[in-house]
Amino acid sequence: MREYFYSNISMQTPRRIAVVGSGLVGSLLAITLRKEGHHVDVYDRRPDIRKTQFSGRSINLAMSMRGWKALRSVGVEDEIRQIAMPMDKRAMHVNDKPVYFQYYGKEGEAISSISRGVLNRKMITLAEREGVQFYFEQKVWDVKLPEAIIYTGETERGEWREHRYDMVFGADGAFSRIRHKMQRRSRFNYSQHFLDTGYKELSIPAGADGQHQLNKNSLHIWPRGNFMLIALPNLDGSFTCTLFMPFEGENSFDELTDDEAVLCFFKKHFPDAIPLMPCLSEDFNKNPISALVTMKCFPWTYWDKVALVGDSAHAIVPFYGQGMNAGFEDISALAKLMKLHGDDWETIFEAYQKERKPNADAIAELSYRNFVEMSSKTADPDFLLRKKIEKHFAEQHPELWTPLYSRVTFSHQPYAEALAIGERQEKIMDEVMRIENIHEIWQTDVIEERMLGLL
Amino acid sequence: MREYFYSNISMQTPRRIAVVGSGLVGSLLAITLRKEGHHVDVYDRRPDIRKTQFSGRSINLAMSMRGWKALRSVGVEDEIRQIAMPMDKRAMHVNDKPVYFQYYGKEGEAISSISRGVLNRKMITLAEREGVQFYFEQKVWDVKLPEAIIYTGETERGEWREHRYDMVFGADGAFSRIRHKMQRRSRFNYSQHFLDTGYKELSIPAGADGQHQLNKNSLHIWPRGNFMLIALPNLDGSFTCTLFMPFEGENSFDELTDDEAVLCFFKKHFPDAIPLMPCLSEDFNKNPISALVTMKCFPWTYWDKVALVGDSAHAIVPFYGQGMNAGFEDISALAKLMKLHGDDWETIFEAYQKERKPNADAIAELSYRNFVEMSSKTADPDFLLRKKIEKHFAEQHPELWTPLYSRVTFSHQPYAEALAIGERQEKIMDEVMRIENIHEIWQTDVIEERMLGLL
Repeated sequence: MREYFYSNISMQTPRRIAVVGSGLVGSLLAITLRKEGHHVDVYDRRPDIRKTQFSGRSINLAMSMRGWKALRSVGVEDEIRQIAMPMDKRAMHVNDKPVYFQYYGKEGEAISSISRGVLNRKMITLAEREGVQFYFEQKVWDVKLPEAIIYTGETERGEWREHRYDMVFGADGAFSRIRHKMQRRSRFNYSQHFLDTGYKELSIPAGADGQHQLNKNSLHIWPRGNFMLIALPNLDGSFTCTLFMPFEGENSFDELTDDEAVLCFFKKHFPDAIPLMPCLSEDFNKNPISALVTMKCFPWTYWDKVALVGDSAHAIVPFYGQGMNAGFEDISALAKLMKLHGDDWETIFEAYQKERKPNADAIAELSYRNFVEMSSKTADPDFLLRKKIEKHFAEQHPELWTPLYSRVTFSHQPYAEALAIGERQEKIMDEVMRIENIHEIWQTDVIEERMLGLL
Repeated sequence: MREYFYSNISMQTPRRIAVVGSGLVGSLLAITLRKEGHHVDVYDRRPDIRKTQFSGRSINLAMSMRGWKALRSVGVEDEIRQIAMPMDKRAMHVNDKPVYFQYYGKEGEAISSISRGVLNRKMITLAEREGVQFYFEQKVWDVKLPEAIIYTGETERGEWREHRYDMVFGADGAFSRIRHKMQRRSRFNYSQHFLDTGYKELSIPAGADGQHQLNKNSLHIWPRGNFMLIALPNLDGSFTCTLFMPFEGENSFDELTDDEAVLCFFKKHFPDAIPLMPCLSEDFNKNPISALVTMKCFPWTYWDKVALVGDSAHAIVPFYGQGMNAGFEDISALAKLMKLHGDDWETIFEAYQKERKPNADAIAELSYRNFVEMSSKTADPDFLLRKKIEKHFAEQHPELWTPLYSRVTFSHQPYAEALAIGERQEKIMDEVMRIENIHEIWQTDVIEERMLGLL
């Protein structure tokens, strides 16, 4: 299959294609299109990420099965595995209790912590190696949709240069300029919804011995209700941390006005983290507070000329760790459809948006809901018991039950299907949790029989 | 109260204010601000509507209590009443049945059919009389939010002129340019959702005797499930008709490709309308198919500098006849808050958006739902019985029950409250309609007692 898939005999007529955006999804798309024999130019308004510092507003990526599949398809899985830290469990930090571990899946199943910047640099280099041409610091201001012409220039109101292509892909993120143009057409559905919760990047450096100061194969969570701290491991012994917290109100960024307030807040809520964070004040002052948006739109394509991929079509909040995975899956879908429909790009685009839109909506919903799971429920003993029961039953009846998290993270099941089945399972678990003495009898045959009956 | 309200002693310091948009809400706002002593300039990208033909894409307005209140507040109610046709009932045209009437409210309660164009012309003239300055064919392309500067010019990319104000109001409709700028800020929530149903304006001219060819005090509906025709009376004996229908699929605009197809469609579905519509083909070819959008956003204001009013803040579908009424109520709310807070425009704007946003969301929801009511349910005998029972009970217990339609149309109750109470009443009516033999016993004491019990 793989041999066939990546044979050099392309079934497509080479086209001149512009990809706007050199992020992860844009780079992967560029590689995929090059491998089909197309001429591919990538434009980005920012400088080459290989020559700049990272932004200080990154959340480490959690690569899971969907992401790996896409990387495998362009032959770089092994290389990227080298820069990934496997995380097979959550590590919950609840004050005055020992750290508690909750495994994500079955033995051997793990998500992978990867630095967005490091991965992005590798992907761009890889794309160049394939013959993709990159144009950095080129601001695309406008696109003529029916003709696939893009316009670049220094400023929005200044002189523009015209670039004609056969096709344009918008991979330019949640605030996509390409989508912006589509949005001004009639009957274009669009929504952007911001959470009242923002985030700030912080860090835990490696210990004096160069080693990780916390369990290195865990995604660490300090769940505190409407706010939380998380930490994802890096290769160099450090952790990239993210503080998620409301902008305003009680326990909000608004309240943390100076170093003393920050320190006092951390002492109260994250006492075990403080000794690990010598740069807390510095990080806090240096790094911005970023907003979290869910963006939905439709249609994603225009004739056989323009298509949106990744965040420009479906930006989601980061709480399921699926943003990049969902974007990569867009490219897997396009690759499959290109094989299926050859030069019929109108059909490719139509099938692409029809297949992906419900799945993008589903992962948006799951991600939104997962903030509550991560920030509140992981501190709740009943929730942890619920997960244990599910896992226990899944081990006994793997053909009957796969937990929702595993469907999303360790399978290729369409997100929309995972969501629908997950909701049915949720109702069954609600029933199970209402059983008297469930805390004591959850491993008994009675419960197993009951669950089989409910299925 | 009214004397006090419009005394010439303004409590506000005069400001230089730009209103972008000379539509109904923009004109009303301009008059209101002038009466408070402000300098008011109105910009519109279109020519003066008093010097042009109407667009052929209008749906007649249904002015109701909220709209009248706003007009009364600027002293033009009586004048506008002269150009309004009261409609106290729906007239349902179901094939092979006599026309059936359903009264909207109590005796004497009616909504008023008004031509949008005629009303808009009057409002502009009135505003000029108050000293408002209008600048037509002036395209506003950009706004500097913190400084209340607007930029006009021939084209988006050409030369612009700068206009400095103390405050800017966006009254520039569903595709507002002012909102467009606010939308590019972080944490601005926004959605635009188009219906799959579009509409086309048609007409029924006056009869040979100059009189109305259908009952002139009714809103005529030809409910046909997923499409419908409506007709609203004009002063001159004509009716403005609107055909609402899906863009694609069965019974859609897509199918009506030529005069023959149109005629055949009307013969089948609206046979009693055909003899009244001698210009059917002409109208059909001349008038565009327009889209229907629900637009929501938040925030509506920027500091004490910029605020959105009417459709630019909350565009809704027309099926409750409340679009203009809701926009006018925005202005009533602003007028009240100006009296309350004097020169404290930051507080005025904050209170304005806080008060209006939930009500705008509620009327958006109600309007969306009402398409199903108008196009399907009005042809359903059970629905008509339900309305009769409600009305009967409301007559017996006016202090306990006001039907939702009356709350929205014949009261000043906040829309959000009307929606919430309406949903509670809906559940009670569901119960009542499930009673055996309800068709026969609906006027008996048993039902009255039952409803009192359910309340």
